[in-house]
Amino acid sequence: MSHNSFGHLLRVTTWGESHGPALGCVVDGCPPGLRLDPADIQVWLDRRRPGQGRFVTQRQEPDQVRILSGVFEDEAVRARFGGQVTTGTPIALMIENVDARSRDYSDIARAFRPGHADWSYFAKYGVRDYRGGGRQSARETAARVAAGAIARKIAPGVEIRAALVQIGPHAIDRSRWDWAQTLSNPFFCPDAAMVEVWEAHLETVRKAGSSTGAIVEVEARGVPAGWGAPVYGKLDAELAAALMSINAAKGVEIGAGFAAAALSGEDNADEMRSGAGGPVFLSNHAGGILGGISTGQDVVARVAFKPTSSILTPRRSVDEAGAEIEVRTRGRHDPCVGIRAAPVVEAMTACVLADAFLRHRGQTGYDGTPIGDD
Amino acid sequence: MSHNSFGHLLRVTTWGESHGPALGCVVDGCPPGLRLDPADIQVWLDRRRPGQGRFVTQRQEPDQVRILSGVFEDEAVRARFGGQVTTGTPIALMIENVDARSRDYSDIARAFRPGHADWSYFAKYGVRDYRGGGRQSARETAARVAAGAIARKIAPGVEIRAALVQIGPHAIDRSRWDWAQTLSNPFFCPDAAMVEVWEAHLETVRKAGSSTGAIVEVEARGVPAGWGAPVYGKLDAELAAALMSINAAKGVEIGAGFAAAALSGEDNADEMRSGAGGPVFLSNHAGGILGGISTGQDVVARVAFKPTSSILTPRRSVDEAGAEIEVRTRGRHDPCVGIRAAPVVEAMTACVLADAFLRHRGQTGYDGTPIGDD
Amino acid sequence: MSHNSFGHLLRVTTWGESHGPALGCVVDGCPPGLRLDPADIQVWLDRRRPGQGRFVTQRQEPDQVRILSGVFEDEAVRARFGGQVTTGTPIALMIENVDARSRDYSDIARAFRPGHADWSYFAKYGVRDYRGGGRQSARETAARVAAGAIARKIAPGVEIRAALVQIGPHAIDRSRWDWAQTLSNPFFCPDAAMVEVWEAHLETVRKAGSSTGAIVEVEARGVPAGWGAPVYGKLDAELAAALMSINAAKGVEIGAGFAAAALSGEDNADEMRSGAGGPVFLSNHAGGILGGISTGQDVVARVAFKPTSSILTPRRSVDEAGAEIEVRTRGRHDPCVGIRAAPVVEAMTACVLADAFLRHRGQTGYDGTPIGDD
Amino acid sequence: MSHNSFGHLLRVTTWGESHGPALGCVVDGCPPGLRLDPADIQVWLDRRRPGQGRFVTQRQEPDQVRILSGVFEDEAVRARFGGQVTTGTPIALMIENVDARSRDYSDIARAFRPGHADWSYFAKYGVRDYRGGGRQSARETAARVAAGAIARKIAPGVEIRAALVQIGPHAIDRSRWDWAQTLSNPFFCPDAAMVEVWEAHLETVRKAGSSTGAIVEVEARGVPAGWGAPVYGKLDAELAAALMSINAAKGVEIGAGFAAAALSGEDNADEMRSGAGGPVFLSNHAGGILGGISTGQDVVARVAFKPTSSILTPRRSVDEAGAEIEVRTRGRHDPCVGIRAAPVVEAMTACVLADAFLRHRGQTGYDGTPIGDD
Repeated sequence: MSHNSFGHLLRVTTWGESHGPALGCVVDGCPPGLRLDPADIQVWLDRRRPGQGRFVTQRQEPDQVRILSGVFEDEAVRARFGGQVTTGTPIALMIENVDARSRDYSDIARAFRPGHADWSYFAKYGVRDYRGGGRQSARETAARVAAGAIARKIAPGVEIRAALVQIGPHAIDRSRWDWAQTLSNPFFCPDAAMVEVWEAHLETVRKAGSSTGAIVEVEARGVPAGWGAPVYGKLDAELAAALMSINAAKGVEIGAGFAAAALSGEDNADEMRSGAGGPVFLSNHAGGILGGISTGQDVVARVAFKPTSSILTPRRSVDEAGAEIEVRTRGRHDPCVGIRAAPVVEAMTACVLADAFLRHRGQTGYDGTPIGDD
Repeated sequence: MSHNSFGHLLRVTTWGESHGPALGCVVDGCPPGLRLDPADIQVWLDRRRPGQGRFVTQRQEPDQVRILSGVFEDEAVRARFGGQVTTGTPIALMIENVDARSRDYSDIARAFRPGHADWSYFAKYGVRDYRGGGRQSARETAARVAAGAIARKIAPGVEIRAALVQIGPHAIDRSRWDWAQTLSNPFFCPDAAMVEVWEAHLETVRKAGSSTGAIVEVEARGVPAGWGAPVYGKLDAELAAALMSINAAKGVEIGAGFAAAALSGEDNADEMRSGAGGPVFLSNHAGGILGGISTGQDVVARVAFKPTSSILTPRRSVDEAGAEIEVRTRGRHDPCVGIRAAPVVEAMTACVLADAFLRHRGQTGYDGTPIGDD
Repeated sequence: MSHNSFGHLLRVTTWGESHGPALGCVVDGCPPGLRLDPADIQVWLDRRRPGQGRFVTQRQEPDQVRILSGVFEDEAVRARFGGQVTTGTPIALMIENVDARSRDYSDIARAFRPGHADWSYFAKYGVRDYRGGGRQSARETAARVAAGAIARKIAPGVEIRAALVQIGPHAIDRSRWDWAQTLSNPFFCPDAAMVEVWEAHLETVRKAGSSTGAIVEVEARGVPAGWGAPVYGKLDAELAAALMSINAAKGVEIGAGFAAAALSGEDNADEMRSGAGGPVFLSNHAGGILGGISTGQDVVARVAFKPTSSILTPRRSVDEAGAEIEVRTRGRHDPCVGIRAAPVVEAMTACVLADAFLRHRGQTGYDGTPIGDD
Repeated sequence: MSHNSFGHLLRVTTWGESHGPALGCVVDGCPPGLRLDPADIQVWLDRRRPGQGRFVTQRQEPDQVRILSGVFEDEAVRARFGGQVTTGTPIALMIENVDARSRDYSDIARAFRPGHADWSYFAKYGVRDYRGGGRQSARETAARVAAGAIARKIAPGVEIRAALVQIGPHAIDRSRWDWAQTLSNPFFCPDAAMVEVWEAHLETVRKAGSSTGAIVEVEARGVPAGWGAPVYGKLDAELAAALMSINAAKGVEIGAGFAAAALSGEDNADEMRSGAGGPVFLSNHAGGILGGISTGQDVVARVAFKPTSSILTPRRSVDEAGAEIEVRTRGRHDPCVGIRAAPVVEAMTACVLADAFLRHRGQTGYDGTPIGDD
């Protein structure tokens, strides 16, 4: 992680502001010979896309991605791979901003919205693009999702999916967890019974000109044991950084997470029995990671998102000149950024895992054969 | 963060196993001309040192640090700085392991302790140093604390301190918070009334051959606005990685953290009034970081530690040959690794902040003058 | 340097193939508040642009650069800075490929041109974009020149210029060196008397369906003492990597370079006398760098470029199937890539110096005051 | 390359000053399961060791290396591997300085030796360890050689060897090249007839209180096609940086190098014929690297070293106070640092190649099978 890049062998660099002409990313280090069409990326962008429901921003962005480099196709490639493939060179992706309204920003151009990065950007740089939040806008996450679509293709057999487990004070009932549900409601909610509660809550929040926080849980299946590296390149440390870097994230936990603090050693230890492809675990408090290295269990993480800071309710603040003011943010904003964060959490997890896979293969020569089978 | 290094302009690399001859670190990129004696490092190592109470491992390690490079002193230096100073070249620190008992390890040499990284290291590398936990041992954190002692000297005016806020299910009463208390009890506990409760809990845990988790909170005062960088080098993202990389950490949160998910936008937004040196905030849900950049408020983070996995209570497991076994871990172990983690959390926070300071100064020419005073 | 990025605090990532829709770069870590218009970049791109003479490729690329992010302008910015400025966030630049002829590539699609990277790309990736050389094309250097234009704005007071000092066997007479000449002939030649010789040589080369090598010399004035860092981040080591990474480069030397091997210690040592702003040197065999750190003298480097490998003269080779073939490369190619390399050498030097400046400022707090004046 | 580290997946960090208690390195990212004893490292250190002839420094350093971490051995490991092996965790190596004479340094403590980094270090850091050259001392290269010994074990089948091809103005006759000679004379000279000439030259130089430069050539055999990466992580770019970072290096060239500038395209292109394991090349002007990626030919590079700047002949200079002085350097110095540079050049080449191998394996899954055999 440095400035606007992350990853080691698979390195993602993003760029772009909310109201600039476009945003995008460069994905460098992708293995060659992977099938990659724009549609492979578009499907994930469409899941994250704004303007898709009553409870997300009304900004209408088609988020059409263009692949500008790093892929190739000719007759021989089609015959061998079935279509366009990655070449191993950097893949540049671009998404144009088409619904950035050039309205008058005079009311926030010099003001610092409480809870927003207006002030900290100003303090750091002395100058900032305040239109639509500039670089701090959640639009930047479209580039993450695009990069994640490529990352998903890299680590063979890994399946990544995320769900919202809490909106505001309303947490799901985990006993009703059903992954299929996450695809059939606008909240990525795995608990069918909770959807109505969340709708009602969000309706109240919207009418009050307020906003609300949320918690997203992500699970990666099919991660073999051995990915990650001691002691600062730990898989959980890299996941923590990647997830905490998402706009509005305030907390990250792995497996049992904060609840582990209250457990006894006996309860927290995931016991093992012998299985065909290595140990079989009887529980997963570890969230699939021990000592920073994957165990072969599902990798499980949760991310807490704060409520959107752009709200209609007036808040006390100051402006660039130091004058005391009241701020209320008009414009198009998500009342709960956590909702659209689920695809972003998936994407960041995919990027971290793909990079860990490549590095593990580099250091150890890992070829997919489980320990014990060689 | 890569393998065993972290940081950018200030880069820390650690090495060493629990039962090897020594452990240590290289701190590269330190500014020149900072006063640095071994005693400046020893004071922090002594706070982390094992063998200091009934509830920590009985391994007796003096943890005497040697500075092997990167410092200089002659008459002219003494006259100008008052003693030995850093030269800007890499500072190598070494701590010898003197109480690594060469006992028989046959009972764990081929076994995987549940909840421990035994299995994941084996799965990754195929070979591992199991003596005392090898590279996974909490002894590695001594090197972090040593590096942190140098980092503390780099960022001017920043004061970092940590406290335990929960052991097992017993959380402190925050209304009784008193920093002075953290220096007068063996638990870095800021709530005097909680000390007895924790003692009783730990006594029970110890007698049961069990272990318990904990939560550590860290606060950095005096961090000016403007440190950190969008969007993957965010200050909170780097803190999250640094703190999650500590042994046994399972969760990290900034400011209100996971609780922010339940808040409304009005409650979460930290309102501002005008102050002499920039905005004055009326609350600190943000934990001093917005958009990945420091706001000038105290930086506040919490880390959850799982219970020690080395326990006397037998647990079901498997060994390298795939045989199903029961494991109980004899030897000297902390029943609550979280206790000794407080100085480590401080050290990692110091390293992250010092690096952020140097990078901010590099990119912007920041010279310590607050925004508006130039 | 990793994959397709280089630099530390100032990090440049480039992307794009010769016949893809576009090429470009992301420049991350640029200080905020620097005036930057497309014209500031275009002027340097125009110097490198193909299609400008008889001895360069006839491909007609306007090389119009677009700034897609990282800059901002409003009334307040104009009032304060005079126009659009950098914001400190990543600057994405894009140049569209408009004259990529979609001709039939069947004659080289499966063949490996001797001296070209066709074979090595194939051996590495198994698949490659052979159209116009793909990622190996000299078109990639347009992105370097664009990045260099930004880098030139970062290091205050540094002036960078390059000249060709040899084409084929014909080296200039250094006693006739005149920088002004480099701007008035198509070869960046500082020796007016050599221009005709080179023209004749290139005419012969062109008629023979051959190509020729060249040597470029670059000089950076105004670099203060103290930039660079021991011992692997040395200024000359980073320059060497940056310059060697340019297409067709086969050698790099600093100051006296290879000639230093034949010198005695007395002759090589640059003696010093006392000056107003630090030492005054009586010679510059060091090329402005000692111990990897700038001395305050001009930084001087030379880069050797091999002859273009795409030539009309048939050469023996093999194809992907292992068949023995003869290859001659039709199409539009520079007979001497070294000619257009001069602006690229300048750009890479600018990027390395700007990054060294930022890191020096980060580590030491350097504010432009010479040693001794503080 | 950053500060005092280099490499990506295989990352080497060195530390230590000439007259500090010790010097050393940390080698991180080494694959697990490689046999490694101190003797495997010592053999290369012994080749580089000072005090071994009339024409090198008389400082007597045994350069005994200690492995402090990252290796393990027990009965099971011995049975499986035959002895101690790497574990995949960081390998810390330490070499104590035992012959650092605590003489009076008052004559150079405030003076800047011409051609030496005294001035540039002072300008950068304001304070420096001048004893024996401090961090700028050639003693630092012992750590490189130690790291290189590990790197040699990583890339299977690669053999690296270096020779001196020029001392002062006396270049070898390449037609007499005999690698066996390099092991039987003190100059790593492959031309038996040149040894006497060099001896006479060095004797003259020594008596004159002077010094002389040299050129070292390195060759790596057995590097398969495909290592390295476009376009800034090119194998030749990384080699150039690694070699230029060696003390006193002033130039680096690959294959035909600077001579390529004078060649025609026909002469420079290495023609190919079909072979069993891929193309067979009819010449090697490329030095085994095209487009930054290895071709399967021998990798060939040359490094020019300037004459030692510490000479007995007085030179004009200034001191820290700006006074004009004359400097002559007493003490123990190599009259030709290039001689002992040969093992260092080998070591740096080994590190770069090992890292390129690991990264290539990471990105592409390369398992040693040549292209076409899978």
